Amino acid sequence: MPDIGIILGSDSDLPRIKDCFRILDDFSVSYEIIVASAHRTPARAMEWASSARSRGIKVIIAVAGGAAHLPGVVAAHTTLPVIGVPIETKISGGLDSLLSIVQMPSGIPVATMPMGSAGGTNAALFAINILGSSDPAIAGKIETYRKEMAEKIELKNEELKKLGVHDYINTIEDRR
Amino acid sequence: MPDIGIILGSDSDLPRIKDCFRILDDFSVSYEIIVASAHRTPARAMEWASSARSRGIKVIIAVAGGAAHLPGVVAAHTTLPVIGVPIETKISGGLDSLLSIVQMPSGIPVATMPMGSAGGTNAALFAINILGSSDPAIAGKIETYRKEMAEKIELKNEELKKLGVHDYINTIEDRR
Amino acid sequence: MPDIGIILGSDSDLPRIKDCFRILDDFSVSYEIIVASAHRTPARAMEWASSARSRGIKVIIAVAGGAAHLPGVVAAHTTLPVIGVPIETKISGGLDSLLSIVQMPSGIPVATMPMGSAGGTNAALFAINILGSSDPAIAGKIETYRKEMAEKIELKNEELKKLGVHDYINTIEDRR
Amino acid sequence: MPDIGIILGSDSDLPRIKDCFRILDDFSVSYEIIVASAHRTPARAMEWASSARSRGIKVIIAVAGGAAHLPGVVAAHTTLPVIGVPIETKISGGLDSLLSIVQMPSGIPVATMPMGSAGGTNAALFAINILGSSDPAIAGKIETYRKEMAEKIELKNEELKKLGVHDYINTIEDRR
Amino acid sequence: MPDIGIILGSDSDLPRIKDCFRILDDFSVSYEIIVASAHRTPARAMEWASSARSRGIKVIIAVAGGAAHLPGVVAAHTTLPVIGVPIETKISGGLDSLLSIVQMPSGIPVATMPMGSAGGTNAALFAINILGSSDPAIAGKIETYRKEMAEKIELKNEELKKLGVHDYINTIEDRR
Amino acid sequence: MPDIGIILGSDSDLPRIKDCFRILDDFSVSYEIIVASAHRTPARAMEWASSARSRGIKVIIAVAGGAAHLPGVVAAHTTLPVIGVPIETKISGGLDSLLSIVQMPSGIPVATMPMGSAGGTNAALFAINILGSSDPAIAGKIETYRKEMAEKIELKNEELKKLGVHDYINTIEDRR
Amino acid sequence: MPDIGIILGSDSDLPRIKDCFRILDDFSVSYEIIVASAHRTPARAMEWASSARSRGIKVIIAVAGGAAHLPGVVAAHTTLPVIGVPIETKISGGLDSLLSIVQMPSGIPVATMPMGSAGGTNAALFAINILGSSDPAIAGKIETYRKEMAEKIELKNEELKKLGVHDYINTIEDRR
Amino acid sequence: MPDIGIILGSDSDLPRIKDCFRILDDFSVSYEIIVASAHRTPARAMEWASSARSRGIKVIIAVAGGAAHLPGVVAAHTTLPVIGVPIETKISGGLDSLLSIVQMPSGIPVATMPMGSAGGTNAALFAINILGSSDPAIAGKIETYRKEMAEKIELKNEELKKLGVHDYINTIEDRR
Repeated sequence: MPDIGIILGSDSDLPRIKDCFRILDDFSVSYEIIVASAHRTPARAMEWASSARSRGIKVIIAVAGGAAHLPGVVAAHTTLPVIGVPIETKISGGLDSLLSIVQMPSGIPVATMPMGSAGGTNAALFAINILGSSDPAIAGKIETYRKEMAEKIELKNEELKKLGVHDYINTIEDRR
Repeated sequence: MPDIGIILGSDSDLPRIKDCFRILDDFSVSYEIIVASAHRTPARAMEWASSARSRGIKVIIAVAGGAAHLPGVVAAHTTLPVIGVPIETKISGGLDSLLSIVQMPSGIPVATMPMGSAGGTNAALFAINILGSSDPAIAGKIETYRKEMAEKIELKNEELKKLGVHDYINTIEDRR
Repeated sequence: MPDIGIILGSDSDLPRIKDCFRILDDFSVSYEIIVASAHRTPARAMEWASSARSRGIKVIIAVAGGAAHLPGVVAAHTTLPVIGVPIETKISGGLDSLLSIVQMPSGIPVATMPMGSAGGTNAALFAINILGSSDPAIAGKIETYRKEMAEKIELKNEELKKLGVHDYINTIEDRR
Repeated sequence: MPDIGIILGSDSDLPRIKDCFRILDDFSVSYEIIVASAHRTPARAMEWASSARSRGIKVIIAVAGGAAHLPGVVAAHTTLPVIGVPIETKISGGLDSLLSIVQMPSGIPVATMPMGSAGGTNAALFAINILGSSDPAIAGKIETYRKEMAEKIELKNEELKKLGVHDYINTIEDRR
Repeated sequence: MPDIGIILGSDSDLPRIKDCFRILDDFSVSYEIIVASAHRTPARAMEWASSARSRGIKVIIAVAGGAAHLPGVVAAHTTLPVIGVPIETKISGGLDSLLSIVQMPSGIPVATMPMGSAGGTNAALFAINILGSSDPAIAGKIETYRKEMAEKIELKNEELKKLGVHDYINTIEDRR
Repeated sequence: MPDIGIILGSDSDLPRIKDCFRILDDFSVSYEIIVASAHRTPARAMEWASSARSRGIKVIIAVAGGAAHLPGVVAAHTTLPVIGVPIETKISGGLDSLLSIVQMPSGIPVATMPMGSAGGTNAALFAINILGSSDPAIAGKIETYRKEMAEKIELKNEELKKLGVHDYINTIEDRR
Repeated sequence: MPDIGIILGSDSDLPRIKDCFRILDDFSVSYEIIVASAHRTPARAMEWASSARSRGIKVIIAVAGGAAHLPGVVAAHTTLPVIGVPIETKISGGLDSLLSIVQMPSGIPVATMPMGSAGGTNAALFAINILGSSDPAIAGKIETYRKEMAEKIELKNEELKKLGVHDYINTIEDRR
Repeated sequence: MPDIGIILGSDSDLPRIKDCFRILDDFSVSYEIIVASAHRTPARAMEWASSARSRGIKVIIAVAGGAAHLPGVVAAHTTLPVIGVPIETKISGGLDSLLSIVQMPSGIPVATMPMGSAGGTNAALFAINILGSSDPAIAGKIETYRKEMAEKIELKNEELKKLGVHDYINTIEDRR
């Protein structure tokens, strides 16, 4: 039984949340994925959302862009926590997606994540935070993840000290 | 049988589209009204939208603010033309409502009207334009409406000429 | 006699609404096209708009960018329903085009479509919705179109299940 | 032991999230409240966040406006789920608060709620969704809450039908 | 024969550009005023614009809000310099009016003034700058106007020095 | 003696207003150009502005991006009409440049042109409109320019009719 | 000899930065004030800026709204650190003021403070930070100021605990 | 002992502020650099900020993008002047970074620099302005720097005069 359900308005958004899948895999959290649109296949989206809890799902991640109604429509059909991930567009880099997801009316909450690739990563991590809220083992794994993240930054500081800033910048620019 | 179906996300939006009802009355166009939310009463909204054509409705007007999903959700459940009216909010005066309604994905169109009181007026007039598209009698009524609108402006020009600009401004400011 | 009249402020906008023409063709809806600018050839634009109904046109699609006055100017010269399509610009991805089209004053309605390629597609579909408003045969065709759209999404879900998310993403990225 | 911890950047924000407290009370969910600023009392804010899990807290709600760093700073010091509530400002109605909370970098997630009074309400409801994620009793209470919300809307529809739209609008306007 | 022609989309905008009339009066520049809408009375607006040069008009000031097409439409029907004044709205304080006026396409220029009451004042002054461009007497009057403006500021500095900042602020606040 | 004075904040902006020079050449209007920054060479900019009228200049075009103070600073040092051209930036495509130029305070007017390449073109044309305001010969040349512009559009309509829309689009796309 | 020089584009901005004067007084930092506009009295503003260092001034605070050129123009005429304070306007609550001040070109820096009353307060505090950068006595005073600020917040927490959240909110609302 | 402390939220931002290091080197101002995130390594960032004054640092430059909390968090842990540099993002070109840095609450000031590469340059120059505030030798060096900057612009004017505008533009375009 999957812990996390992931729903996307379009399969073209799958590569943009690549890191979401990678992190869930790293934390050994199981998930199921469906492509369903709030507008093009609304029945499918709602049926999936309504039955999510009965399939053992504990948190839902909903990904959409533009007039991004999917997270809100999913949230209207389940009492599970729904995390919304806005996809970038040309309107101010995705302001339409962001506002369409975050400005939900009183009564039906959606938890909005950042735009862009950070959105996928943080959706996975926030879902894990929820699972870890009452599970110390998962909370411990998050601590480890954060420690490793901090250690990577310290390694960079050491390299920066060793190379000096000008050579370090050259190394970054060469890598591109 | 009503020609127009009007759906609002909240009854508090009714006074903001007052002119919508007034214009439909003036043109003797019949309408039905329902308050139903895409998030709080989604089943009600969808059932109403799905059955609208069978009740003889020819055009739908959907009014919502914030993460304004109602027009899109309604459009996903009917093949009738759906007109969306964004309600003002504090976010840049309603940019969230506007973008949530207008930025629909390919496949499910919604026709967006202006923010504020012009939105209600123009939703009614656009619905009438649709009815008049194949009905010369209604088209004739619109012509008359526009002529009267133009004549009112000409009366103002006459008054402006008579009073001079300074007295005319005083008259406007006194009226407030 | 064409059912739909399409007017563009610049011929450089033609490729951006390619899907508009494809969909009208698919639905066997006839159309005429004119390039006319609200500012550079206003007489041409207005004469075309004023006479549209007499040529049998039932719905007008007007496409423009920047200070996009064309849809409003056309709407001022006809009582037919006018659909406005904003073209992307560099100002927040087209916020100037969008606001110039959508914020029409009370009295002269324009129905605004989304920015970008979805705008062309949905303008065609909304025009067809209008034609289908009182024509069950066209309404039936829209139903079929939507069913096919939904089926394509289901095929993607099947492929996603078969390949798994990582291989599916690779396939998408390879295709680019 | 409180289930929810609520932290606000300023006590002047307390009245704006009134409904947050009312809903938590209605659901009999216990909570503790602290006023602590990411900038003026950072040590206090971080110590509170770091020790929240050990006090039995399962979800944190962090409320702030302007350069709203509090939710992010709190999230950096706990592995509990952190819900951010942006407070309205004069910059586009709070776009600064919203972007400062939602645009978190990869690695440290914050769940952003809508601006304004809906933010407080939905923060409470989302926290309850999290508690209910693995607790069917709480999930049942949410179902009841939603049913009552839907019934209230139906009562309005009945009153609207009874009074007619013009009298109903008068009633709303009189109430103001 | 008037030197300046002023056209407004709505008579309700007259009080907002009060200072425009005051300044033209102060500089003894003659003007004529018409209320004509690009959408509600387009024929009137265009006829007035087309014939403006023949009536001796040298500069046109066009005032409008929202989808503010009037300045552009007027500019399309005359080769006289057209100054556009955007009227405030609720959308970000008039961003719609501003962008609709300023973002004219190549070929038909409009000179955009600031939003709000500064717009009316500066439209008058810019029109006078144009008249003074080849007329040293008018240029001299502008010099005088600017000197007086500077002297008023110096008087304030003297008062500020005399009163001290705290009493000066009290005086300002009392005046309100 | 040059009729037009053109001042740019940076020589890197010269290519962006290429069409400005081309149009002035086409209309045989003489001009002088200076690169001077409101911040890096303010004395130079002000001295140039102050003495412009004495060099026979009748209209000034000032081009700048970002915190685009140059047009305002120039306008503060001359009573000649000053036309401001905003240069595109990454902030919403140049919203910073636009607002910095257009939002001048009461008393010192600047005439703002559109962003991007249309800005250079229209600055030239607006300067010519000013020259033509009292010179029928120049006004006549503008009429000719506009007629040619309209004729080019008509040629496109003819080609569009001949080729049909699909082939016409192919031709455009091939040209790219 | 004053340590701080304060320049405002308009005397109407004086009440908005009231707290700036109060804080400088509290820290016993001397200051001089001038009202001078970048556009209406540019000579005055530049002469004041150029001579500021010779009058013993160590930091300049420049306050302006709209096309807020004053801080940049002042910075171009002194090598002293210049702090810019944007004044609120109707354009998105002052986005024009903010962008006009912050988006300075390479070479001439301006330090931008927040919009609104926080701008005046923080301009004073930042100027004091600069003075304290090399003066431990002043740095000590800032430490004390911050401790008192933190203590005030702790008193609120104590009152909140004593009253409970509902009574505390009532107290706040009564005070209004 | 370094005069300036530079802290970046991510090492990927180092190349974007290249000119910052170049200018500090040119002015022979010593500096230390650390990569530390307000969210991923908050303890490191705060410890570094708290101890900066004791290491002889006189000014801090903090660089961050998105929900850019680093400058504010650093400012909360030191009484030294903190200069914030916003990094460009896709949201309107970095409006999120800018607002997250500039909209600090009363009490803890941060001095905000422009977006993009000008941000790094001006952060260095503003730090030098602070050092030069009480040090005439450094102030003299800034004067020299500005003179050279002005001379470079004059050389461009000479080249422009020599080549003529069309050839000069060709030279620029060839160089790209």
